[in-house]
Amino acid sequence: MSICQTPQPPYVCAIFTSIRTSVEAGYEEMNEATFLEIQGIEGFLGVENFRTPEGFGINISYWKDMESLKYWRDNALHQRAKALGKKQWYQSYKLRIAVVEREYGFEVE
Amino acid sequence: MSICQTPQPPYVCAIFTSIRTSVEAGYEEMNEATFLEIQGIEGFLGVENFRTPEGFGINISYWKDMESLKYWRDNALHQRAKALGKKQWYQSYKLRIAVVEREYGFEVE
Repeated sequence: MSICQTPQPPYVCAIFTSIRTSVEAGYEEMNEATFLEIQGIEGFLGVENFRTPEGFGINISYWKDMESLKYWRDNALHQRAKALGKKQWYQSYKLRIAVVEREYGFEVE
Repeated sequence: MSICQTPQPPYVCAIFTSIRTSVEAGYEEMNEATFLEIQGIEGFLGVENFRTPEGFGINISYWKDMESLKYWRDNALHQRAKALGKKQWYQSYKLRIAVVEREYGFEVE
């Protein structure tokens, strides 16, 4: 993973923090499919994520505005992923929708 | 790690995404010290974080409001950690300050 290059704020982010069940069936495939799908959504700016071997994960997706995040919310593949996620892949999660107001960067020259 | 129990929005979060250098000296000690320090800051709600073995990390701290986040920004230990971080521990980072507007949860019964 790497740090997202995001534009000047304000922009929007969706913070998805989750704990997985032990069900593996179909999970990776859906992950890859939604990763491809999200790239095509108008206003998608990028994603930062990881999952620990113990199943705790953070996924932050960045969006131009609430409008673009709504396209993603209403996306059919995403809705299917969400339904299957609740049914089998996730033990618990929180999804937080936030507006980024300020951004500070640092990089070694 | 686990999922933070946060109050009804709105509240604030600071998303710190970073890539480490290979310098280990003092890093864990400072991490532990700031983790203890942050618990005592008025308005601190919790933190979700991780770092991969390759050195990519996400740290999201949650705050009651911008006021409480400013207490943390101005905290002396935190400022020292930041200065040392830029000098030796981090190759690059982004810090994003955001207002959480909505939160959705899910938990298997």
